[in-house]
Amino acid sequence: MISKNLLKLANSLQLKKYRTQEQSFLIEGGKSVQELLNSHFKITHLFVTDVFAQQFEKQISENPAELHLCNEKDLEKIGTFKTNNAAVAIAKIPANEKFEIKNEWVLALDDIRDPGNLGTIIRIADWYGITKILCSSNTVDVYNPKVINSSMGSFLRVKLFYTDLAVYLNQLNIPILGAFLDGENAHKINYPNAGVLVIGNESEGISREVAKFISQKVNIPRFGGAESLNAGIATAVLLDNIVKSNTQ
Amino acid sequence: MISKNLLKLANSLQLKKYRTQEQSFLIEGGKSVQELLNSHFKITHLFVTDVFAQQFEKQISENPAELHLCNEKDLEKIGTFKTNNAAVAIAKIPANEKFEIKNEWVLALDDIRDPGNLGTIIRIADWYGITKILCSSNTVDVYNPKVINSSMGSFLRVKLFYTDLAVYLNQLNIPILGAFLDGENAHKINYPNAGVLVIGNESEGISREVAKFISQKVNIPRFGGAESLNAGIATAVLLDNIVKSNTQ
Repeated sequence: MISKNLLKLANSLQLKKYRTQEQSFLIEGGKSVQELLNSHFKITHLFVTDVFAQQFEKQISENPAELHLCNEKDLEKIGTFKTNNAAVAIAKIPANEKFEIKNEWVLALDDIRDPGNLGTIIRIADWYGITKILCSSNTVDVYNPKVINSSMGSFLRVKLFYTDLAVYLNQLNIPILGAFLDGENAHKINYPNAGVLVIGNESEGISREVAKFISQKVNIPRFGGAESLNAGIATAVLLDNIVKSNTQ
Repeated sequence: MISKNLLKLANSLQLKKYRTQEQSFLIEGGKSVQELLNSHFKITHLFVTDVFAQQFEKQISENPAELHLCNEKDLEKIGTFKTNNAAVAIAKIPANEKFEIKNEWVLALDDIRDPGNLGTIIRIADWYGITKILCSSNTVDVYNPKVINSSMGSFLRVKLFYTDLAVYLNQLNIPILGAFLDGENAHKINYPNAGVLVIGNESEGISREVAKFISQKVNIPRFGGAESLNAGIATAVLLDNIVKSNTQ
């Protein structure tokens, strides 16, 4: 049995207000909780099925988190998953570390609003070895359960830093790329070995304020009738072109 | 007022059984219906707001479809959209044309089950100028409203052909590419100017049966910790590499 208070706490973390208040967030699903157990994130509560508990007995016993054995019905009440659930965890939001761009590529997100898109972008960044993402203040919160879920564990390896994007970009002195219809063909560019790739809002694209700091406009060439690619797809295609250019 | 029978017809088209029976499907949203009006698809019913009717007066008056002026509340009852709706249409499923692969790239989908993924893949195909997609019999139905909606109008330009994929691929005599972890680096390949790109199921990848016919295994190089890319992202990155290689 999960106490009412604990259930209330877990449910409250679906809202940013309570995540900020508690400095905690939810991680759901066996795969993500398994990765979480192997990470440096501080887990406060673990809600797991007997099967999961047996499978990851060692990691769980070594973790100081409060352990609650649950059945799947309990897990459904604690988290947002409707099925296929083996584990839910509550973890502490890590303290803001210094965000410093070294000789590397980073992403900058200009008001990405859809949690699924942000999660997908984090997963893509992780695939291409990007470990830092700058986010405009209006970009959806990374600790939203939908973002965490769709990042498929990649939130553990990619750091997000929320800031006034225009102000931040203004003080950088490295190449800043952004996708524009009138940009240079993304296939024909020799990309630098470090820089910022700016991804715009799902419907508005890159804001005027941020566009001022773009040093290179790029355009993914189109061969058919679709009017646009979604933000996640554009991120993947551009990162693929960047790393390809840098590894050839 | 929409008659009860008409409402029942529209709602029934959310299920494949009734789409097959009526040989009809739903198209929702102002932008998609606008594109539909400019296509060769046969529309039988148009449900539109006054504003939409005025905006596209000419196309609507020239179309033989039954016209119903509605308010947004009516449109919500007819279709699946919760907000932002200006138009819903019922159109006839086009008769199966002969599916013939010429000197071109086509996609083959091996059991894509998620409607959002299929819609996204159709949109990506359309962006890269792919106009034909082979689908295994178990791939989700293209006329599912969620597929139509997430294709963002691209279903009008891309033809899907459902078949026994292994049997179909067996009789082809062109390059057949598929993504595998042990495949050749997708960045290092000189792609042929025509062929089939096979995209596997979201969790199972390419089935054994279909894998037998893959003539070239490719692998999107990974630089970080994410275990996989989703089906839509992989499709976009591979098509981008293919067209890039073919246009340089």
